[in-house]
Amino acid sequence: MSNLKNRKLKMGMVGGGPGAFIGAVHRMAAALDGQIELVAGAFSSDPKKSEAAGEELFIAPDRCYGSFHEMAKAEAARDPDDRIDFVSIVTPNHLHFAVAKTFLQAGFHVVCDKPATFDLKEAKALRKIVKATGKVFALTHNYSGYALVKEARHLVQSGKLGKILKVVAEYPQGWLLDAIEKTDQKQAAWRTDPARAGASCCVGDIGTHAEHLARYITGLEIESLCAEFTTFVPGRQLEDDANILVRYKGGAKGIIYASQISAGEENGPHVRIYGTKGSLEWHQPEPNQLILKFPDQPSQTLRPGNPYLSKRTQSLCRLPAGHPEAFLEAFANIYKEAVRAMREAVKGKQKANKAYDFPTIDDGVYGMAFIETTVRSASSKQKWTKFPSL
Amino acid sequence: MSNLKNRKLKMGMVGGGPGAFIGAVHRMAAALDGQIELVAGAFSSDPKKSEAAGEELFIAPDRCYGSFHEMAKAEAARDPDDRIDFVSIVTPNHLHFAVAKTFLQAGFHVVCDKPATFDLKEAKALRKIVKATGKVFALTHNYSGYALVKEARHLVQSGKLGKILKVVAEYPQGWLLDAIEKTDQKQAAWRTDPARAGASCCVGDIGTHAEHLARYITGLEIESLCAEFTTFVPGRQLEDDANILVRYKGGAKGIIYASQISAGEENGPHVRIYGTKGSLEWHQPEPNQLILKFPDQPSQTLRPGNPYLSKRTQSLCRLPAGHPEAFLEAFANIYKEAVRAMREAVKGKQKANKAYDFPTIDDGVYGMAFIETTVRSASSKQKWTKFPSL
Amino acid sequence: MSNLKNRKLKMGMVGGGPGAFIGAVHRMAAALDGQIELVAGAFSSDPKKSEAAGEELFIAPDRCYGSFHEMAKAEAARDPDDRIDFVSIVTPNHLHFAVAKTFLQAGFHVVCDKPATFDLKEAKALRKIVKATGKVFALTHNYSGYALVKEARHLVQSGKLGKILKVVAEYPQGWLLDAIEKTDQKQAAWRTDPARAGASCCVGDIGTHAEHLARYITGLEIESLCAEFTTFVPGRQLEDDANILVRYKGGAKGIIYASQISAGEENGPHVRIYGTKGSLEWHQPEPNQLILKFPDQPSQTLRPGNPYLSKRTQSLCRLPAGHPEAFLEAFANIYKEAVRAMREAVKGKQKANKAYDFPTIDDGVYGMAFIETTVRSASSKQKWTKFPSL
Amino acid sequence: MSNLKNRKLKMGMVGGGPGAFIGAVHRMAAALDGQIELVAGAFSSDPKKSEAAGEELFIAPDRCYGSFHEMAKAEAARDPDDRIDFVSIVTPNHLHFAVAKTFLQAGFHVVCDKPATFDLKEAKALRKIVKATGKVFALTHNYSGYALVKEARHLVQSGKLGKILKVVAEYPQGWLLDAIEKTDQKQAAWRTDPARAGASCCVGDIGTHAEHLARYITGLEIESLCAEFTTFVPGRQLEDDANILVRYKGGAKGIIYASQISAGEENGPHVRIYGTKGSLEWHQPEPNQLILKFPDQPSQTLRPGNPYLSKRTQSLCRLPAGHPEAFLEAFANIYKEAVRAMREAVKGKQKANKAYDFPTIDDGVYGMAFIETTVRSASSKQKWTKFPSL
Repeated sequence: MSNLKNRKLKMGMVGGGPGAFIGAVHRMAAALDGQIELVAGAFSSDPKKSEAAGEELFIAPDRCYGSFHEMAKAEAARDPDDRIDFVSIVTPNHLHFAVAKTFLQAGFHVVCDKPATFDLKEAKALRKIVKATGKVFALTHNYSGYALVKEARHLVQSGKLGKILKVVAEYPQGWLLDAIEKTDQKQAAWRTDPARAGASCCVGDIGTHAEHLARYITGLEIESLCAEFTTFVPGRQLEDDANILVRYKGGAKGIIYASQISAGEENGPHVRIYGTKGSLEWHQPEPNQLILKFPDQPSQTLRPGNPYLSKRTQSLCRLPAGHPEAFLEAFANIYKEAVRAMREAVKGKQKANKAYDFPTIDDGVYGMAFIETTVRSASSKQKWTKFPSL
Repeated sequence: MSNLKNRKLKMGMVGGGPGAFIGAVHRMAAALDGQIELVAGAFSSDPKKSEAAGEELFIAPDRCYGSFHEMAKAEAARDPDDRIDFVSIVTPNHLHFAVAKTFLQAGFHVVCDKPATFDLKEAKALRKIVKATGKVFALTHNYSGYALVKEARHLVQSGKLGKILKVVAEYPQGWLLDAIEKTDQKQAAWRTDPARAGASCCVGDIGTHAEHLARYITGLEIESLCAEFTTFVPGRQLEDDANILVRYKGGAKGIIYASQISAGEENGPHVRIYGTKGSLEWHQPEPNQLILKFPDQPSQTLRPGNPYLSKRTQSLCRLPAGHPEAFLEAFANIYKEAVRAMREAVKGKQKANKAYDFPTIDDGVYGMAFIETTVRSASSKQKWTKFPSL
Repeated sequence: MSNLKNRKLKMGMVGGGPGAFIGAVHRMAAALDGQIELVAGAFSSDPKKSEAAGEELFIAPDRCYGSFHEMAKAEAARDPDDRIDFVSIVTPNHLHFAVAKTFLQAGFHVVCDKPATFDLKEAKALRKIVKATGKVFALTHNYSGYALVKEARHLVQSGKLGKILKVVAEYPQGWLLDAIEKTDQKQAAWRTDPARAGASCCVGDIGTHAEHLARYITGLEIESLCAEFTTFVPGRQLEDDANILVRYKGGAKGIIYASQISAGEENGPHVRIYGTKGSLEWHQPEPNQLILKFPDQPSQTLRPGNPYLSKRTQSLCRLPAGHPEAFLEAFANIYKEAVRAMREAVKGKQKANKAYDFPTIDDGVYGMAFIETTVRSASSKQKWTKFPSL
Repeated sequence: MSNLKNRKLKMGMVGGGPGAFIGAVHRMAAALDGQIELVAGAFSSDPKKSEAAGEELFIAPDRCYGSFHEMAKAEAARDPDDRIDFVSIVTPNHLHFAVAKTFLQAGFHVVCDKPATFDLKEAKALRKIVKATGKVFALTHNYSGYALVKEARHLVQSGKLGKILKVVAEYPQGWLLDAIEKTDQKQAAWRTDPARAGASCCVGDIGTHAEHLARYITGLEIESLCAEFTTFVPGRQLEDDANILVRYKGGAKGIIYASQISAGEENGPHVRIYGTKGSLEWHQPEPNQLILKFPDQPSQTLRPGNPYLSKRTQSLCRLPAGHPEAFLEAFANIYKEAVRAMREAVKGKQKANKAYDFPTIDDGVYGMAFIETTVRSASSKQKWTKFPSL
C-alpha cells in the first residue's frame, strides 16, 4: 500500500462549486498546512459546472466529475498512489449520507461538513458503516478547532474550574431576519427547506455548533431538555430561533440558544462555563481571548502562542504570541488532526477515531439526536424531554 | 403647607445601619445632586446602634430613632417645614410593607428598595395604600436609572429597532458560590432565608432586576414563562440559580437568567434586545457603552453626554461626553425624579406616579408577580405557567 | 475653636455659576459622601447672577456674594462655627492665585481646580503662602482620585512592576477641532486666550493631567523634555496639540501627548507604565479596569471593590465588586482626603499636606513648571530642554 | 513562454529552515489560496539541513539546495514550465540583497521579507536591479495586507476623514526585555547583532512596520523626525526602544514608537489616524475591528465581510461577516496580489509594480531611509533631522 508519509495527501471534494461559501473554506483549511493537495472533485451535479469549477482550482479535467458516484468509481480505479486519499463532503445536508457511504465503502476516508446527516436514523446507519469500514470520518465542527477552545477543554478536564455547574452556549445570527429564501439566496433556500435541511433550520445549522462546543469543552451529556422554537418570519417552514433549557447528566444546568433573526449579529458562537472553582468564557468574534475568572482574583485573559498554555494547545498555534489566528486556522486544525489519523491508518497502527482530537461520527450521531430531541420538545408544548440513548 | 421649592428635601432612613451596603448607596445617591439632606433615621432596631449610626452621619441625636414606628410618629409631630419630607426604606424585604405603610399613612412620601414587599399579596395591599394616600412611592430598580438605559428605552419606543422579537436579560453573580450564609455574612443570611427574603433568593434579589430592566426598555409584558430553579449549594433553602424562558404578549420571546453561583462574575446585569430593524445591548460592567446594531451597517457605540442622544437622556447626564458615569449616578437619577415628583406634589399639580420616570408600586406589584410565577413554574416540574393579571 | 468632628464641613465656592461645567462637578463631588455642605458662594462677578446661582443651590441670599473679596471678608467675620471651613476655586486659571491667596490669608482652607495658577511664578508665590499659613491646599488633579489609579500607584511603589523603564501618557480630545472659540462657547474662549489660560492651551488644560497621572503612579520626575506644539486651527493663538518626548531622572523614558483636535475622541486620559518585571495600563473611558501584564503570563484585569486590591484602594471603593464607579467618585476621593486633612488640622495634629493623598501646591508648582518647560522647548525649535529645579 | 494561467505558481524559498518562524509563515500564507506550490528551497546553508527541511515539506530531494546560488542556477536551467516562478526570501537581513539580486538577475520574481536590505545603499542598488529586470518584487509588510487596513486606506483616500492632521503608530513588544540573545535564542541573536541586523534593532524590526502601516493608510511622507533611542538591556549593542516625533510633508504631525522591552506586550501594531472630519483606529491584537469616529456621532465598528466595506476590501475577505480572519490571511493577501502581478507579467501586460497593491522595492527603499534617518537623529542628540530625498 502507498506510503503516505512521504507525500501530501490527495483530497477530492463533493459539492463546493462556485458561490458555495463552505467549499472554499474547506479548500483553504486543507491547503494551509501544506499537507494536502486537492486533485479531484464533483463540484456540481452539472458536469460542465463541475469542470469549470475544477479548472479554476487547477484540477485536471479528467478528475472533474459530474457525479459523486462516478467520482468514487473512477478514483477507486486509479493506481493506489495516484487516487485520492479522502473526500471532503460539502453538499447540502440531505446528500451527506449517500456521499459518505459511497466513499467509505469505496475505501476512502471522509471529512464531512456538519450536521452529519439528514436525520438521526441516517446518522446511526452511517456510524455502522464507519465502524465497519474502519475508515477515518471527521466531522467539521470547526469551532472546536480553535486553539483556545482546546485550552478551555484542557482547563475543564484538568479540574481547574472544579465541578461544572452551569453552561451558557449561544449562537446568534441575523442573516435570516428577512425572507431571503424567497430571493435567489441559494443557501437560505435549502437551509429553510425541510426537504433539504431536515427537521430544523436554526438548531440544525448553528444550534448544533453551540451544543457541540459546550460538550467539547465540558464533556457534559444532556439528560433532558426543554426547547422553545419560534418562526418569526412569516411563511417560513422551519424555526429561525430556538431557546433551550438543558439538564445535564450529573446535575449541571444549561442554556443553549441559537437565532437567525438577531438583527446585526454576525456570528457567534459564545460560550461560558461555570464550575465550583472558576469560570471561563470564549467568544468567536474575538477568538484570541480566553477569559478565566476565579473568585476574589483578577480575571485573566489567555491568548494563543504563550508558554502558559498546555503543550497540546501550543502545538496547535501556528504563530508566536501576539499574532492573531482565526476561523480558517481553527478549521485547518480539524484537517490537521484528520490527516494525522489517515497517515497513521495507512501505517497500520490506526486507533479508534476517538484517539484523535477531531469530531467523529459519534459526534454526528449525538448532534442529530440533539436536533431531533429539540424538535420533539418544541413541538410538544415545550415539555421537558429526555435525551435518547445512542 | 411648606414650599418645597426653596429648600432641599429632608430625608429619613429606615434601615441602613453600619455595614449595610445598600443604605450607604441610598445616602450617596440622595446626596449627589444637592437636592436632599438626610435629617433623621431609624438605622437599627437597637436604639443605641441607631444613634451611633446617626452620629456618624451628623444627624441630631433626637432624630435617631430606635424604631420606625417611633420615627414616623415623632416626625409627623414636627412642624411641617421641619419634619422629613420622605423616608427611604433599606431594610430586609420582609419589613418593607410595614414600614412603607406606616410612613405613607403618616403623610410621607416613600423611596423603597426592591423587591417592593415580601410577597405579591403584600405588594397589592401596598398598591392600594399608595393610591389611597396619593403619596409618591419610588422603587429603586436602579439599573433603569442609567442614562444609556433610558436611551435604550427611547430607541425602542421611537421604533428605531422595529418590532421587538427577542430579549435576553442576564444577571450573573458569584457571591453565593459557597455557603457563606453559614458564616457571619449577614446579607447572605437573610437573602437565603425564606422567612426574610421570601419565596426566592436568586430571582427575588437579582432576577427581578433583569426582568425589570428588560421591561423598562421594551415595555413588553409576560404572557407565560417556564422556569428552572437550581439550588447548587447543599443545605441552602432557596434557589441560587434560575434559568427562565419567556413568552411575551404580542409574540416576542425571551431568556431571563440570574445566578448567584457563577464563579468570578461580579455583577450583571446584561441586556440584549432584538427587533425587526435592529438590536441593542447594554452591560453594566461597562455602563458607558450602548451598542446598536443594524443589518449591513457598522455597529455603533453610544456614550453619555453626547448631542446624538435624546434630550431626555442628555438631561440625565451630569458630565460632558467622555467622562464616565456609573452606578451611583444611575441610582441618583431615581432620586432626582422622585424629588421632582415630590416637589410637584406639594405644589398641588401632582400627576399619577406614572407621569414620572421612576419605578412605582406598579413595578413593585409586577416584580412580586414575576417572583411568584417563576417559583410556581419551577416547583411544578417547569411547565409553562401563565403570568397572572394584576 | 470649632470641633469639626461633629458636623459637616462648610464649603464656599468661587466661580462655578450657571453653565460652568466644572463648578457643578465640584459641588457633586463635595456632596457625595455627606461630609460637606455648600453654604456660600461668589458664583459670578455679577452680584445678581451670583445670587441667582445661589438660589438654585439653596444658599441663603446673604451668603451669595458679588466678589470673592467680599466673600472672604464677610465669611471671616462670621462666628467660627458658622463660617465656611474652606473654599473651592473653580474660576478660569488667571484668577486662581488671587482667590487662593485671599482665602488662605483669611484663614480658610482651599480646594483649587488645576492648573494651580496662571504661571510658574505665581505658583511658587502661592506655595510660600500655603506653607506660611499652614492651611490645607488641595489641587483637583482628579484622575489621581480613581481607586484603580491608586492601585496602580501602589503596585509600582511596592515593586510589583520592577524598575520603571517607560511611560506612555495620553490625553486626546476633539472638542477644539473647529474654531468654536469664535462662537459663544465661553470655555473655549478662555482656554484659547493667552490672557486667561496662560502660555499654553492644550498642555495647560489636559497635558498637565496626563503628566500628573504618570507622575502620581510612578513617582518619576522629569530630567528633560522635547516638545512639539502645533496649532492646527487657523487663527488660534495657543497650541491645540502637543507631542512630548521625556527623559526621566533615573533613566526611564516617556511619551506624553495631549490633543484637542483629535476628531471623535471624547476624553482620555490613558496611561501605560512598563517596568522590568511587568506593565500596567489604565484608560479613563473604561475606568473600572486596571490591566496588568507580566511576561509569559495571562494578562490580568483588576476591578474595584475586590479583596485582591490593597487595603487603601479598597477603602476608596464605595461599592461592592461589580458595581462600576466613575469620574465623580474619583473626584470625590480628592475631597474626601482633603476633608480628612482639614478635620485633623483643626484637631491640632495636622501633618504636612504631603502626609495626605491629594495633590498639593507642590503638584501645582510642578505642573506649572511642566507647562513652562514644554512651551520653552516647543518654541526653541524643539530642542531637548532641562526641567528646572523647583 | 509558459502560460501561468492554467496552473499554480511554483515557489522556491531561501532560508526558513527548521525553527525559523517567518519561513513557516510565508509557506502557509503562500499555500492558503491554492495558487502556489512550494517546489524548491535552499532552507539552510548546510545542505543536509536543507534537504531534511525539504523532506518535511514534501520537496523532491534534487530541489533542496545547499546554497541560494546553486538553487538559482539549477532552477534557471530547468524547463521553463518546470522551474520555479518566484523565490521567497526569509533569511536574516544581511543576506536579502545578495539573494534578491541573484534571483532577479536569473529571471525570477521575488517575494522578500522586510526590511528590504541591510542598509539604504543596498536598497537603492536593489531598486535599480528590480527596475532593470522588470521582475515583480514584493516586500512583505504584512500588516498592510489586512482587509480592514485596506479599508482604512480607502477611507482616508476617499476623503472620509478630511485632511489628515495627526498619526499615532505604535509597535510595542516585550520579547527582548531580558538579554535572551545571550541564550541560544537564534532570532534574538541576529536581531541584536549590528553585523546581521544593520544599524538598528527595534526600528529595523518593528518600527518600520509601524511607519509603513501609517504611510500605507495615509500616504503621508516624512519631512523630518526627532528620534530618541534607548538600549535598556545592559550590554546590548543596538536600541531596544525608540520614540519618534514626526513632521509630515503638508503639516501633519506624528508619533511613531516601537519597543521590545515593554513587559507583557505581545505584538502591536496599533495605529490611530486623525483628520479634520473624523478619525480611525486599528489594533492588530483585535484585527477584525476598525473603529471610526466622527465628532458628535456614535463611534462605529467596522468588521470584515460586510457589504458596507469598499468592493476592494470585500474582495480580500475570504469569509462571510462574523467569521474572523487574522495574521495569516493578511499575509496571504500580499502573496495573492504578487501572484496576480506575476501572472499578468507573463501575459505581457505587466504594469509597474506600483499598479498592484503590495509593498514594493520603493517601500523597501523608504523603509531603509526611515531606519537610517532615525539612527542619525538618535545619535545626534535627538535633533530634528531631515528625511532624505530618495
